[in-house]
Amino acid sequence: MIPQEILNKMDGNRRRYVDELLSFLRIPSVSTYSQNAPDVRRAGEWILNHLKRLGFQAKIYSTAGHPIVLGERCEMPGRPTLLIYGHYDVQPPEPIDEWRTPPFNPVIQDGYVYGRGATDDKGQFFTYLKAIEAVLAVESKLPINVKVLVEGEEEIGSPNLVPFLKSRADDLKADAVAISDGSQFTHGIPAITYSLRGLSYLQLEIQGPRFDLHSGVFGGVITNPVQALSDIISKLKKDDGTVAIPGFYDNVLPLEKWERDEMANLQFDEDSLKAYLGVQELTGEEGYTPLERKSARPTLDVNGIWGGFAGEGAKTIIPAKAGAKISMRLVPNQRSERINRLFREFIHSITPRGVTVNITELHGADPVLVSRDEKNVQAAAKAIETGFGKSPVFIREGGSIPIVNLLKEVLGFESILLLGWGSPDDGAHSPNERFLLDDFHRGIRSAAALLYELAL
Amino acid sequence: MIPQEILNKMDGNRRRYVDELLSFLRIPSVSTYSQNAPDVRRAGEWILNHLKRLGFQAKIYSTAGHPIVLGERCEMPGRPTLLIYGHYDVQPPEPIDEWRTPPFNPVIQDGYVYGRGATDDKGQFFTYLKAIEAVLAVESKLPINVKVLVEGEEEIGSPNLVPFLKSRADDLKADAVAISDGSQFTHGIPAITYSLRGLSYLQLEIQGPRFDLHSGVFGGVITNPVQALSDIISKLKKDDGTVAIPGFYDNVLPLEKWERDEMANLQFDEDSLKAYLGVQELTGEEGYTPLERKSARPTLDVNGIWGGFAGEGAKTIIPAKAGAKISMRLVPNQRSERINRLFREFIHSITPRGVTVNITELHGADPVLVSRDEKNVQAAAKAIETGFGKSPVFIREGGSIPIVNLLKEVLGFESILLLGWGSPDDGAHSPNERFLLDDFHRGIRSAAALLYELAL
Repeated sequence: MIPQEILNKMDGNRRRYVDELLSFLRIPSVSTYSQNAPDVRRAGEWILNHLKRLGFQAKIYSTAGHPIVLGERCEMPGRPTLLIYGHYDVQPPEPIDEWRTPPFNPVIQDGYVYGRGATDDKGQFFTYLKAIEAVLAVESKLPINVKVLVEGEEEIGSPNLVPFLKSRADDLKADAVAISDGSQFTHGIPAITYSLRGLSYLQLEIQGPRFDLHSGVFGGVITNPVQALSDIISKLKKDDGTVAIPGFYDNVLPLEKWERDEMANLQFDEDSLKAYLGVQELTGEEGYTPLERKSARPTLDVNGIWGGFAGEGAKTIIPAKAGAKISMRLVPNQRSERINRLFREFIHSITPRGVTVNITELHGADPVLVSRDEKNVQAAAKAIETGFGKSPVFIREGGSIPIVNLLKEVLGFESILLLGWGSPDDGAHSPNERFLLDDFHRGIRSAAALLYELAL
Repeated sequence: MIPQEILNKMDGNRRRYVDELLSFLRIPSVSTYSQNAPDVRRAGEWILNHLKRLGFQAKIYSTAGHPIVLGERCEMPGRPTLLIYGHYDVQPPEPIDEWRTPPFNPVIQDGYVYGRGATDDKGQFFTYLKAIEAVLAVESKLPINVKVLVEGEEEIGSPNLVPFLKSRADDLKADAVAISDGSQFTHGIPAITYSLRGLSYLQLEIQGPRFDLHSGVFGGVITNPVQALSDIISKLKKDDGTVAIPGFYDNVLPLEKWERDEMANLQFDEDSLKAYLGVQELTGEEGYTPLERKSARPTLDVNGIWGGFAGEGAKTIIPAKAGAKISMRLVPNQRSERINRLFREFIHSITPRGVTVNITELHGADPVLVSRDEKNVQAAAKAIETGFGKSPVFIREGGSIPIVNLLKEVLGFESILLLGWGSPDDGAHSPNERFLLDDFHRGIRSAAALLYELAL
C-alpha cells in the first residue's frame, strides 16, 4: 500500500504539476511534419532532463527519424522491474481554425487543460514522472526498479522503434510494462484495456491528364480522376457497412458470447455519444452494437481527400489528379502487412480505365490482445482503485499503440498494463483536445500506487 | 473587301500589338476571387481607355459584381451595326506550381505568348481593338457602325449581365454580334462555331460529426463524410459513362445523321489529343465519338474535392466534413435551371444516413444553337478566309459563353457570329495557357476584314 504521506504530498503539489504539464504542452512536437523535427527533439530533451533530475540514468538516442529517450532507476535488487512507456510526439493540430484556444498555448478552463497532447500522450505519460517524484520526495527511493522508454514517433506508427527494441533488448528487460495512452471507459468508470486495434494506413494518388483541363473543351472524353477516386472509395465499403476488400475478414477472431455479454453489461451510452459527436444517428456494420463496432470490429475510413479546385467560387476544370488517405483499423488476428497487400490488389482491380493509381504505405500496426488475468493486472486494478476510488472495468479500445504488439512479439513481454487515465471525449486527434485535471491527478495517484502494488 | 493598305499597316505593327497585349495580360483580373476585384476593375478601365483613344464614346458601368464596359462608334447611318462582345476577366491561375512561366508575367516562347488570359479571352478580344485601330489609321472612319461590350464576370457565369442587357437594350441594338472566345477546329483549320454547351455548376458540402474525430476511438460508429461524398459522386455516373440523374437527358436534341456525318468528316485526330492530354485512352459515353462527346453531348465532371487531412504523412481522423464542386455541361435543349433542380433532388435521394448535405448553385448558363446559314455568317466566312488563308469549317464547341444565350433569348439577336481565333490546345483554364502569335495576328486581319464584309 502506498503511504498516505505520499498521497498528501501530491495533493500539496497539484498546482505545480499542472504548471509543468503546461510547459510540456507548449512544445509543438508534431511528428508527421518534417519542419517540426527540432520541436520533437526538444520535447524529448525536456523529458530527458526531467528524468535526470529524478535521479535516473537517462539518455536520448538518435534514430533515422525522431529520437527515443530511455532511462532507468534500478536500485532495488530482488524487487520487480516496471517499464513505463509513453510518447512525447503529438498529432497535427489542423484544422487550426476550429480550436477555441491555441493548440500549443494550453489553457485551463472548466477544470480541463486544453491543448494538443493534453491527453495523447503528454498529459497521461507525465503522471508517472510526478508519481515518481512524489515517492522519492517522501521515501528517497522507489519501491521497485523502474525503467522509462519515451518515443517521438508514436503518431506516425513508430517506424524506428523495432530496431531500437531489438538492439536494446537487455536494457529494456522488465517484469511488466505500464502504458497510459488511452482512456477510461467513460467519465467516472476507470478501465484496464486488454485489446487494441491495429492499423493499416495508405495513400492513393490518381493521375489522369497531365494538367488540369477546361471542363467544357474536354468534358466527355477522359476519365475524371476525382470521379475515379470516388468510384474506388465507394467500392471499398458494402451497403451493410462491411469492408469490401476480398479476404479482409479472414483472420478476424469472432467475438465470443461471454465477451459480447460483458460489453453489453457496460451499458454504453449511445445518446451521450450522439450528442457529443453531433450526429443524428450512429451507423456502421450491421449485426454489432456501437461499442463492439468501435472497439472490437475492423473498420475502414477515409482520413482525407483532395483534388482539383477547392477555392472560392467556380473553376471549370477537370483536375489532373486526385488523392486520398485511407486507413483501416484492424482487430486480432488480422495482420497489417497482409491487409496492405489485399488493399493494393483490390484497388488495382477496381481502378477505372483512363487513369493510373499509385499506392503508398504510410503507417502500420498490428492489433493486440493482452492477458487480463495475471497477478500484475490485479495489482494495477488495486492501484486504480486507490487513484480513482473505484475498481476498473475491462475494455477493448479502438485506437492503436504500435509498441504494444512490438513489446509482445519482438521482446516477448507477457505483462502489459494498459491503463488509460483520459476519457473518450478528450478529443485526442481532434481540435480542442483536453484532459480533465482531476483525471490527471487521479492518474498520478494511481501511478504512484502501482509502484507499491507491484512491489508486493 | 478590306483595302490592302490596312493589311500592310497591321503587318508593320505586329510587335507593338504584342507588347500591348502583354500589358493587358499582366493585370491579374481573376473574377472568382474577391480579393482580385480591384484588378478586375483595372482591366475594365484599361479597355475603357483603349476604346476612348480609338474615338469611341465609352463608359464603365458598375454592377453588383464586376463592372461592364460599353462603347460605340456609330458614324455611318444606313450601314449595319456590329456588336463585339468580349470579357476581360480570367480563370484562377491555380495550380500555380505547374506553370513554367508566371501566369501574370506573360512570356513569348516558340511563337506563343504564355500567360493567364492569353487566349481566354483577353488575347482574342483584343484583336478587334487592333483591327479597328488599323482601319482608322488608314481610312479615318470605320466601314460600319461598331459597338463594344466587355464584361468582367464571364468566368463566373455573368451573374450581373441580364439586368444590364435589359436596362441597356436600346444601346445594344445591332445587326450582328461577333464573339471570339473559342477556338479553331484545330491548328490550321479555322472554324465558325454554331453551338455551345451550357453549364450547371454546384457545390456540395457534407457535414458529419461536429469536429474531426480520432479514427481509432470512433471508427465504426459514424458515417464518414468523405465516404458519403464518394458514394454520392460514384452514383452520379453509370458504368456506360452516362449521367445517372433521372430526367437528365429528357430534353437533349438527338444528333441528326447529317450532323454526325459532318462531324465524322472533320477527321478529328484522337491520337494527337491523347498525346496532348497525356492519357492512354479516351473514355466517355458509349455510342458516341470523342468529338461528339466533347462538343455535342452533355457531361458531368467533378471540378474539385476536399475533406480531412491532405498534409504530409498520416493523420488518423474521421473528417467532420467534406465538399466537392461538380459541374454539368449541357446541350440544346437542356435548361440549367431544370438540371439544377434534378441534381438537387437526386443528391438528396442518395445521401447516406448519418450525414447532412448542403447544395449551393454557383454558376449557370443555358446551351445554345445559332444559325449557320444567314448572310452575316457568309460574310464572317469570307473574313476568316482573308485572315487565315482558308475557309472555315462549322463546329460545335464544348465550352460555354453565358452571354450567347442571353443575347439570343433576352435581346432577340438572331445573327451571332462565334469566331474562334485560338486552338483547342491553348490551355484555356489550364496551367500554361497560351495563344499562338500567328493566330493573334490572323485574328486581327479577320476582325478587320469582317468590318468590310459586313458593310457589303
